[in-house]
Amino acid sequence: MSQKRIAIFGSTGSIGRQALDVIAANPQLFSAEILTAQTNDELLIKQALQFNPNMVVIGDEQRYLNVKEALAGTSIKIFAGEDALEQVAGMDSYDMMLAAIVGYAGLRPTLKAIELGKPIALANKETLVVAGDIIMRMAAEKRIPIIPVDSEHSAIFQCLVGEGRNKIEKIVLTASGGPFLGKKPNFLVNVKKDHALQHPNWRMGAKITIDSATLMNKGLEMIEAKWLFNLAYEQVQVLVHPQSIVHSMVQFEDGSIKAQMGLPDMKLPIQYALGFPQRIANDFPRYDFRKPGTLTFEEPDIKTFRNLGLAMEAMKQGGNMPCILNAANEIAVYAFLRNRIGFLDITEVVERTMGTISFIEKPTLEQYFETDGEARNFAASLLHM
Amino acid sequence: MSQKRIAIFGSTGSIGRQALDVIAANPQLFSAEILTAQTNDELLIKQALQFNPNMVVIGDEQRYLNVKEALAGTSIKIFAGEDALEQVAGMDSYDMMLAAIVGYAGLRPTLKAIELGKPIALANKETLVVAGDIIMRMAAEKRIPIIPVDSEHSAIFQCLVGEGRNKIEKIVLTASGGPFLGKKPNFLVNVKKDHALQHPNWRMGAKITIDSATLMNKGLEMIEAKWLFNLAYEQVQVLVHPQSIVHSMVQFEDGSIKAQMGLPDMKLPIQYALGFPQRIANDFPRYDFRKPGTLTFEEPDIKTFRNLGLAMEAMKQGGNMPCILNAANEIAVYAFLRNRIGFLDITEVVERTMGTISFIEKPTLEQYFETDGEARNFAASLLHM
Repeated sequence: MSQKRIAIFGSTGSIGRQALDVIAANPQLFSAEILTAQTNDELLIKQALQFNPNMVVIGDEQRYLNVKEALAGTSIKIFAGEDALEQVAGMDSYDMMLAAIVGYAGLRPTLKAIELGKPIALANKETLVVAGDIIMRMAAEKRIPIIPVDSEHSAIFQCLVGEGRNKIEKIVLTASGGPFLGKKPNFLVNVKKDHALQHPNWRMGAKITIDSATLMNKGLEMIEAKWLFNLAYEQVQVLVHPQSIVHSMVQFEDGSIKAQMGLPDMKLPIQYALGFPQRIANDFPRYDFRKPGTLTFEEPDIKTFRNLGLAMEAMKQGGNMPCILNAANEIAVYAFLRNRIGFLDITEVVERTMGTISFIEKPTLEQYFETDGEARNFAASLLHM
Repeated sequence: MSQKRIAIFGSTGSIGRQALDVIAANPQLFSAEILTAQTNDELLIKQALQFNPNMVVIGDEQRYLNVKEALAGTSIKIFAGEDALEQVAGMDSYDMMLAAIVGYAGLRPTLKAIELGKPIALANKETLVVAGDIIMRMAAEKRIPIIPVDSEHSAIFQCLVGEGRNKIEKIVLTASGGPFLGKKPNFLVNVKKDHALQHPNWRMGAKITIDSATLMNKGLEMIEAKWLFNLAYEQVQVLVHPQSIVHSMVQFEDGSIKAQMGLPDMKLPIQYALGFPQRIANDFPRYDFRKPGTLTFEEPDIKTFRNLGLAMEAMKQGGNMPCILNAANEIAVYAFLRNRIGFLDITEVVERTMGTISFIEKPTLEQYFETDGEARNFAASLLHM
């Protein structure tokens, strides 16, 4: 394998930082071509000095001068602002984009990379949740692979290699259940941010950790999986598997089930996506089945964790409904992280937004953008009540 | 896929009968070209009348006239005797051989099919246990696939499709533990045939069911896996998994583990091997992870089940040692099935034979045949003590 030039969109987040660890550990295989950050200029500067990328983008224009000053004397090109993300994504100097910007903001640069025919290592869920039909159609037209970085989707992707046209009967996404597994609404109503940010198995960013606690994360993953693997909504199931060892499973039409497993460590799916189709030897800790151990699976409690039920409903309805769900959830989760609303209010905001914004069965990309804006505005208006 | 003509060597055994069920259920995909049986002429006749193969072979020459008479008026060609197995295997009228003859007798016809460049669906363990190095080298030269039918090896094969040159770190063969899991020698010493023939999870023939009770079956599978997947002996592990849902696992050099799972039903790996690379839709019962269920894994007790330790030792030594192990075990198991020796005596016979027959590091095929004969004679001599 020749050296792959990786454009990391969102290099200062949890996925971005771990991707740079992978690149640092495998300099013969990878280089960092583009690094981008929204606000964390300090870390971006540090990363740029270590990895010497061709370009960096700082989203927050207020911080442009800081970055420029710190990187003076290097040959690194520096850009600032939201539009620059899209422009840099449109430059033909990289071999693969790691789309690791959290939330809806990751959509536009990813679209640009696909237009350009660049393979995508996709860590941004919202890209497919919001506009999965359009994204997957574009990727198919350009014949580029979308390699998922989420551990669940990576698991399924790994189980599907070599299966050719063999049909999937169903997939089972496993869920750790989050920190509040087994709890009921009378407990959840009082949950505070700090508690919700303690995930039992996975180290992740704040937004996704809250989504894991509400199970919205699993709902977004169901929608993402539906698009990635071209499934009908009935083919996508979720089971709670508190040990987080089985990362997900595929059942084929002959009844055979394939699963991918390992310790919960995001570096593995990140490395897999960057290296695909080549696996890369490493010394990450191994799961030891010989420790007397038990793997359990149970139905999720969607009566208590209503976000998951709402996501299933949005997946079933299709059209712009997942986009509405996602936008409202993003607004609500950030409000929760700022202590403005309670844990169960997140669900209220999502449900009311889904019930209000106009449904469109086959939206254009423009209509997705409009839906997103409307849903955010409406969700935000609910916070002021 | 055009219709594949299948030569079933051992059509009246457990695997052969289930393979014919698969063929009967998929007449557009498969036909039975050759059927063979050792002694069960009645079933062979019934199968021949149903599937109208081109040829049948009855191993026991005494039964030739029965078969001939029963199939008079059909165009089916009838052969008899051990040599006929090899001759028929050398005819170029089939597309794939299902090697399902139990024990050492399956080796020669399989060799013939490989020489002829026919893909092999391999249900006969002994072929690889005895002469794995030679068989796999021949198959590689002829560029034909050896597709395992054993559920464990099929699981690993399924996990390896599409992995290209990605390196295996280790494989884990799962073992149900058999009917005597958790028992100690003071219990095993009194075990009788009827009890040993009650396997908790799998319906199989008598020889393999006893081998499952002694764990020799798992030892033979380790040796088979070593050859099939080109591994060093340290890369082959066994874990007891009493639920028999995870059929086996592969860990790659990046630490990622893939497993294949399902209900214990031999029809699935049989169908997979016959149809490979195409999976075939079916209505076999599905495993339901939603039933509150637990999957457990533990180390095998090789102090009690010493056959497994002997097999590991034979695998490690290599050369003709697995051949000696296998030959002695075959003699001892049939003696046990005839109530001539006790359950723990099987291990004694194997161990003493391994300690007696001359070790050859790189045997020729002829030397394997000689070793087999010597080991059988010596093992048989122990039964008269």
